[in-house]
Amino acid sequence: MDTDTTLTPVQIVDGLRAALGEGGTVLATPAEMAGYLAEPRKRFHTAAAAVALPNDVPALRQLCRWANAHRVKLVPQSGNTGLVGGQVPLSGDQVIVSLRRLDKVRAVDAAAGHMTLEAGVILEHAHQVAEAAGAMFPLWLASQGSARIGGVLSSNAGGVQVLAFGNARELTLGVEAVLADGRLYQGLNALKKDNTGYDLKDLLVGAEGTLGFITAATLKLFPRPEGQETAIVSVVDPAAAFALFGLLRERAGARLTAFELMPRLGIDMQLRHGMLRRDPTPSPSPWYVLCEINRMKGGISGALQGALEEALGSGLVDDAVLAQSEADRLQMWAAREQMSDVQSREGASIKHDVSVPIGAVPELIAEGSAAVERAIPGVRPCPFGHMGDGNIHFNFSQPEGADPRAFMAREKDANAAIYGVVLRLGGSVSAEHGIGQLKTGLLAEVKDGVALEMMRAIKQALDPNGILNPGKVLG
Amino acid sequence: MDTDTTLTPVQIVDGLRAALGEGGTVLATPAEMAGYLAEPRKRFHTAAAAVALPNDVPALRQLCRWANAHRVKLVPQSGNTGLVGGQVPLSGDQVIVSLRRLDKVRAVDAAAGHMTLEAGVILEHAHQVAEAAGAMFPLWLASQGSARIGGVLSSNAGGVQVLAFGNARELTLGVEAVLADGRLYQGLNALKKDNTGYDLKDLLVGAEGTLGFITAATLKLFPRPEGQETAIVSVVDPAAAFALFGLLRERAGARLTAFELMPRLGIDMQLRHGMLRRDPTPSPSPWYVLCEINRMKGGISGALQGALEEALGSGLVDDAVLAQSEADRLQMWAAREQMSDVQSREGASIKHDVSVPIGAVPELIAEGSAAVERAIPGVRPCPFGHMGDGNIHFNFSQPEGADPRAFMAREKDANAAIYGVVLRLGGSVSAEHGIGQLKTGLLAEVKDGVALEMMRAIKQALDPNGILNPGKVLG
Repeated sequence: MDTDTTLTPVQIVDGLRAALGEGGTVLATPAEMAGYLAEPRKRFHTAAAAVALPNDVPALRQLCRWANAHRVKLVPQSGNTGLVGGQVPLSGDQVIVSLRRLDKVRAVDAAAGHMTLEAGVILEHAHQVAEAAGAMFPLWLASQGSARIGGVLSSNAGGVQVLAFGNARELTLGVEAVLADGRLYQGLNALKKDNTGYDLKDLLVGAEGTLGFITAATLKLFPRPEGQETAIVSVVDPAAAFALFGLLRERAGARLTAFELMPRLGIDMQLRHGMLRRDPTPSPSPWYVLCEINRMKGGISGALQGALEEALGSGLVDDAVLAQSEADRLQMWAAREQMSDVQSREGASIKHDVSVPIGAVPELIAEGSAAVERAIPGVRPCPFGHMGDGNIHFNFSQPEGADPRAFMAREKDANAAIYGVVLRLGGSVSAEHGIGQLKTGLLAEVKDGVALEMMRAIKQALDPNGILNPGKVLG
Repeated sequence: MDTDTTLTPVQIVDGLRAALGEGGTVLATPAEMAGYLAEPRKRFHTAAAAVALPNDVPALRQLCRWANAHRVKLVPQSGNTGLVGGQVPLSGDQVIVSLRRLDKVRAVDAAAGHMTLEAGVILEHAHQVAEAAGAMFPLWLASQGSARIGGVLSSNAGGVQVLAFGNARELTLGVEAVLADGRLYQGLNALKKDNTGYDLKDLLVGAEGTLGFITAATLKLFPRPEGQETAIVSVVDPAAAFALFGLLRERAGARLTAFELMPRLGIDMQLRHGMLRRDPTPSPSPWYVLCEINRMKGGISGALQGALEEALGSGLVDDAVLAQSEADRLQMWAAREQMSDVQSREGASIKHDVSVPIGAVPELIAEGSAAVERAIPGVRPCPFGHMGDGNIHFNFSQPEGADPRAFMAREKDANAAIYGVVLRLGGSVSAEHGIGQLKTGLLAEVKDGVALEMMRAIKQALDPNGILNPGKVLG
């Protein structure tokens, strides 16, 4: 397996053109390829042999058959928004295969609760398709204006409503995929229950394009809520936030769609840079929770208010402000969503996307902050995010006035400190963003050895020549 | 792969005893083994070489290492309640490995929403463990008094609240498993988000013991609702039931925990045999829906009543009776739960566990009934079940006064008729019960060929000697 191709660059381009025929385009000049090679982290730099754009599934199958026969390595790409370098090549003899032209909406059935989209459909367009049918596809990401369904599924993307609706995997009923040798796996279905063999759908979702190209998916649709109740709550520490989470789950169950933690530092930074006009609650607080409850059609408002009154009465929370209008609500969400961007106004920052069992979030934050502060005195911890999923974006801003490059040179020390705490608490070193090329070394270190062996065996079984996104995930 | 062992029966028993050491028991006489060989369908009859009962995971690992070296075939079994013969041997040289002694509760954390149980824990005990901690594990099956966690997960069991909480797969956060060669996959975790490689958990769940022994699992816990609103509703046909489903989902979202369809025939039979005392609604109706909405702590009753008043007002439903007490509610559920048993009072019946996209349920029922009536004149269709999941238990009672054996001789014709309709509608021939040995031939016929190839490749990769539950699922 995994032998290199013997074809020359010119032969690769010619072969791709012949394979795609009239059903596609092959780009081969640096200028044409630049937009496919530049990725959002700006840290993974290679050339590519070419960028291939099949027009449809048969053209992609033909391309794979040819590439598999000639050992030409393929890098699947859809929206090119991944944060771990999974969608760009590791070396200049690899071919980016963009699925952006597979962008058909194949079917929508809001009453039955599903739609079938091709891999190239942009996530925001998927939202619009759902809304036009009177339904909702509840997967919202910062990158939704350019992320495409193929990548959203291949990276098992999360976002802000995983708490209630699950991540991409749980929102997917079935997938269609082209395998390394061009075979077509026809696993599209709209079934909530299907116990006819192994769960191939969930294997392909989250495999980061190393086991096949997801070409289309049947996704769940939900009824749109009539409204939301939204609040920002002041709590003394993450342990109080965890207790509040328990109270809200008990009272709202699956109607609780968001439970987001924010530290004072991130609010201070936003005030300093004019991104927020005032404190979210009347007096400053060391920690804040943004929480939201869905109200379905015919439902009565007041569930969140009732729960927060109880929490205030028992001293569990120190203050709470309920959104009185959609403008209020958007303002609250802006405070949460600006939490990452504002850090760039304060110099360099080191970022981690980690998860732990939700009960361990207070320990993660206390010990993770202390561990990195020991390694880098003066560092400013800014942990925030999806506390309801146990998923914290554990970011660190450079010490005030420090040299950004000197700070970033310490990234490995910060990583070692934070991952040590995460692993001791039974957590994950990549909650949302995947492994790509950024974390393959880390994965080899921290993942259960038998799990790695099983993954390699499955990769070998489904892609024996190792042509699909080689070097990603498994290294 | 898949070569037979060269050991004699005596050598197998001796080898098992040596492998288990003091950490287990080996049963080898027909009398001792009888309880493990007799399965609930009473249609799969073979002997076994032995029944091995390891006391703990290290003993099971030792057993697998020995069996893999000697090509001794192992059949995993936990509660022995499976309905497709997956838990009993195909031939007398195979060894049943019962996990019933791995029955520890390893951890419970209701506040954080998870518990870790070993494979031998009985499902009803799992419910009690959750309740004692003030939480709920929402997977309820008819066989819960004897089904055990290992089998519940290996068969990806469903039950009556899949609509709101998902099947066993969606209720599982992580698993621990012993592989064919004795390696231990340590995938227990309590993480809602973990994007570090392939989804091995979901591959092992639902694999019917062909890829590994699930030895323990971390399962989701939920806050217990404060109460339910429950109703039985009269509708003119399954299409009206589908429209009612849409209305209830729009108004109750994920609080809708049950949406069960029942035909008049099943109610008539229960009245005739004294299992029900009166019609569920004031006047007889061709179809009924049992629906239930959870009310969380502090919540206000009336959501179901409000929705049903709207449905009555618009003529969508003909009548509705709300449960006024827990006794009322249990009576309503009894009508649903007796639907299968009552058929045995009316002679022989042919049963199918199928699913289709929920919008296609009305078509499934109309065309499936017609197709089987054409094949077997006088047959009495009795389709009922989890309409909210698109999962219908499509049962047929023999014609009145017909000979039961002559009727059962026509089972293949009924199957062909019903599966033809199911497949045309994009459905599944096994929604809940799995493949086991009962449906391997059917699977080979109806499943996507590439899916079968992928499954075989994965089986070969993880169990190259083919010692785990040979012949099940893939045939």
